[in-house]
Amino acid sequence: MTRKPDAAKLTVDALMAIQPVIPVVTVDRSEDAEPLGAALVGAGLRVIELVMRTEAAAEAIRRMSGIEGAIVGAGTVLSPTDFDVAMKAGARFIVTPGLSSFIVEGARAAGVPILPGVCTATEIMTGLSLGLDRFKFFPAEQAGGPAMLKALHGPFGHVKFCPTGGVTERTAPDYLALPNVAVVGGGWITPKALVDAKDWEKIADLAKTAAGLKR
Amino acid sequence: MTRKPDAAKLTVDALMAIQPVIPVVTVDRSEDAEPLGAALVGAGLRVIELVMRTEAAAEAIRRMSGIEGAIVGAGTVLSPTDFDVAMKAGARFIVTPGLSSFIVEGARAAGVPILPGVCTATEIMTGLSLGLDRFKFFPAEQAGGPAMLKALHGPFGHVKFCPTGGVTERTAPDYLALPNVAVVGGGWITPKALVDAKDWEKIADLAKTAAGLKR
Amino acid sequence: MTRKPDAAKLTVDALMAIQPVIPVVTVDRSEDAEPLGAALVGAGLRVIELVMRTEAAAEAIRRMSGIEGAIVGAGTVLSPTDFDVAMKAGARFIVTPGLSSFIVEGARAAGVPILPGVCTATEIMTGLSLGLDRFKFFPAEQAGGPAMLKALHGPFGHVKFCPTGGVTERTAPDYLALPNVAVVGGGWITPKALVDAKDWEKIADLAKTAAGLKR
Repeated sequence: MTRKPDAAKLTVDALMAIQPVIPVVTVDRSEDAEPLGAALVGAGLRVIELVMRTEAAAEAIRRMSGIEGAIVGAGTVLSPTDFDVAMKAGARFIVTPGLSSFIVEGARAAGVPILPGVCTATEIMTGLSLGLDRFKFFPAEQAGGPAMLKALHGPFGHVKFCPTGGVTERTAPDYLALPNVAVVGGGWITPKALVDAKDWEKIADLAKTAAGLKR
Repeated sequence: MTRKPDAAKLTVDALMAIQPVIPVVTVDRSEDAEPLGAALVGAGLRVIELVMRTEAAAEAIRRMSGIEGAIVGAGTVLSPTDFDVAMKAGARFIVTPGLSSFIVEGARAAGVPILPGVCTATEIMTGLSLGLDRFKFFPAEQAGGPAMLKALHGPFGHVKFCPTGGVTERTAPDYLALPNVAVVGGGWITPKALVDAKDWEKIADLAKTAAGLKR
Repeated sequence: MTRKPDAAKLTVDALMAIQPVIPVVTVDRSEDAEPLGAALVGAGLRVIELVMRTEAAAEAIRRMSGIEGAIVGAGTVLSPTDFDVAMKAGARFIVTPGLSSFIVEGARAAGVPILPGVCTATEIMTGLSLGLDRFKFFPAEQAGGPAMLKALHGPFGHVKFCPTGGVTERTAPDYLALPNVAVVGGGWITPKALVDAKDWEKIADLAKTAAGLKR
């Protein structure tokens, strides 16, 4: 297999720079992966986090990764087993809801970018000691929202976050305006009702609006 | 000593299934243990968390455990020393406000069920890596309440919680309605003023109402 | 160099007992250190946390430490490197936004008091296992404020906190009234605008009011 040019130099910063919102996607039926992925990529959202919460997830990562231009990562990676399944499915990056040093070290050994979740200063310091300074901030709204991120910016001026969890099209700009927010994670682009209805057109509309958010 | 039939198979899930609310009880005078325990057990609250916050706690666990049908555990176990004292007093389960891998491993070695407190995704992932998927969520109200538990249900769909801290008779139903809440911990059933007044009747009334909560 | 008498017995409890508010100070120009420190010490705020967030921080610690009566510590210590720089600059105590066992152990080995930040029960239990029971509570307002500290007082009755982050002259009394708050950290005494304007008189006024807060 020929590696795509961007595969060699993929970093968390590069991933975060591509678009203002990373869609967080749950796929229940693997056959939805292509049309759903095509709707997102076509609307400008190439970087997609597909969560390992369903039986179909691994096959969906595999299928969605076949779409020209798509960069599909695995989310909700909770264990080394999940990590192995995600890597075998071709995940280009790894997202975890919390910080696990085991999974961080696994990702480093495999050379795959990882975005682990944190929500306290202690968790950030643990991440720093592992050599990381890019994190998911989860669950963003419930863990204190923009006010918490502002407070964390004081001591952690060089750390950048991807707030995820409860963020909406309406609240995303409040996060994206912060100096320590690089990108947000968004579940609102692919709500279950629209995916179940296979309404790719409506999803493409939501994706276009998300892709156009300022930061 | 003949082990009671349920002693052999006591698991956290079994404990959580017995009643909708686990009373969290502070005993200042060990002679209160029997009448207080009898009021709770008589009202249908057999599983009781007695906190290691007073000089009388160990003796109170010992005495309350003698009540027919009572399953008395130790709460606020903060150190291996607390753990040893609790085990010697006959604690049938262990509750800790936060997650300590030392205490979790001690409980596993002793074969006693443990319910450690967590309140972030990282803490849950640490617990998962220790083989646990049942946790106290503490302090429930202050750490984000039902909204936080809903957010944590996303990535941690198989994890069940016992929210404790600030929960009341009025707010308990909001927690018990959540798919990831198995039981709640309640301090409202044995308020200090009623225990000091030895008003076992009023405590039995509060316990009956708690025992009747739907989940 | 002759050690001052109080240098030998400096403990976190001793530091916390000196004044109700520890000013948290950012210095951008090392030449501001003396007049700024003099304004604080003259107003009764001898214990000063100077944060390692600027190029000038180490030199500012060195200079401010020369003021008669000043006890200058380093805040925002994020790594062993920061710790070494702070110690070489003469920091008399160490403050970290989160809990790092590496830095705690370094401080113990060096015999310097450390006040690490925590905001969850698990983080407190980790601190207890490291032999600590005095913590910064950070970020105080965003991590739940006085209500969270009240909840943590339940299981952790012997632990004392220094709430820092978002605390103001107006809200400081709510924290200082709590049984588990020994002192608060305050950034409001040295706001950037006043430091940039070299308005030491106004800073001295704010410091006097802070020094007079009841606890």
